[in-house]
Amino acid sequence: MTAAPDDTSDGASAQRSDAVRNRVRLLEAAARLVAERGVEHVTMHEVAEAAGVGKGTLFRRFGDRDGLLLALLGEAEAEFQEAYTSGPPPLGPGAPAKDRLTAFGRALIERIAADADLGAALGRQVLHERRHASDTGRAFHRHVSTLLRKAGVDGDHDMLAHALLAFANFETADYLRKECEVPVARLQATWADLVRRLTRSDGKRPPD
Amino acid sequence: MTAAPDDTSDGASAQRSDAVRNRVRLLEAAARLVAERGVEHVTMHEVAEAAGVGKGTLFRRFGDRDGLLLALLGEAEAEFQEAYTSGPPPLGPGAPAKDRLTAFGRALIERIAADADLGAALGRQVLHERRHASDTGRAFHRHVSTLLRKAGVDGDHDMLAHALLAFANFETADYLRKECEVPVARLQATWADLVRRLTRSDGKRPPD
Repeated sequence: MTAAPDDTSDGASAQRSDAVRNRVRLLEAAARLVAERGVEHVTMHEVAEAAGVGKGTLFRRFGDRDGLLLALLGEAEAEFQEAYTSGPPPLGPGAPAKDRLTAFGRALIERIAADADLGAALGRQVLHERRHASDTGRAFHRHVSTLLRKAGVDGDHDMLAHALLAFANFETADYLRKECEVPVARLQATWADLVRRLTRSDGKRPPD
Repeated sequence: MTAAPDDTSDGASAQRSDAVRNRVRLLEAAARLVAERGVEHVTMHEVAEAAGVGKGTLFRRFGDRDGLLLALLGEAEAEFQEAYTSGPPPLGPGAPAKDRLTAFGRALIERIAADADLGAALGRQVLHERRHASDTGRAFHRHVSTLLRKAGVDGDHDMLAHALLAFANFETADYLRKECEVPVARLQATWADLVRRLTRSDGKRPPD
């Protein structure tokens, strides 16, 4: 983060750098507490205390507990985002769009099933609507939608991406894994099958 | 509900008929209160009072608030279930499986979008896991899975049915309608497109 080029006021600059320091401190404290005791046992009060920052600052910075968790989710997701946007194929660029889609879903489902995955633990704590509207949720959707288009799918990529992701979201995948005891491999195979069915061409489309 | 054939005790029979009467009374009171003030404003206490039944009986009968709402959901869904299992085509029998699948999703999405739909209002109040594991949730899944098989889909019907229904559940459909302002017609068109893509044959399946 750099100061704006027209910034000449040392006071304003110092204020901004205080704000950045506070933000980083709060995120660090939150990440540490979440790792130590699990995200569901961490309160805003404890985060403020551990960061040595006032509770008012914490709320000003992140709005509410969901806001803090979403910011932390963004940090936790940076590595995965790097992997699917610019890492090695088939998750990253270089493989055909269809293979990248399959790899993306496989990785997503594997992460949902991993108890130690911080991003998954955080995402699960946030309401469905806010999670989907978050930077991470929107990045997932954009990625899937773009790959469907690149794979030559003739259709409403935006909605088909939502449909694919609805199968791999926490509500669906957790229910299937935990309540129906569906193995992770079967969920991943279903994702791959859905991608195959969505991306295969069917000559001409029948009139609606 | 009839007495068991070997029932000879008038006392046990009277007890059972009391239990049935209490159950019906409680469901009637709950339905009336839900219609009057909306499901989110109805407490167990009020239902017991309106039914003239002890709160202990209410909890014994339904376990908890979710249990009562699920029982009410079962009653509210009876008409829809009748329509898709034995009503006129294309929702009911007589139309090709693919058309019945399309009609089922259209009807489901229309109901989710209808503010006055009691079944939808009730279902929305119950946690995802319990809703899906309920009689209604399992009946939906069985119906979709059976139609996929009847439509000649070569694949994991059970999982593909979960995938289709994940697109039309409350979490996904409400998010798309309310947060993304997607019109109901576009959600229904996407369901129809998914059914089309899932049920079209592709000659031979490539090796996995």
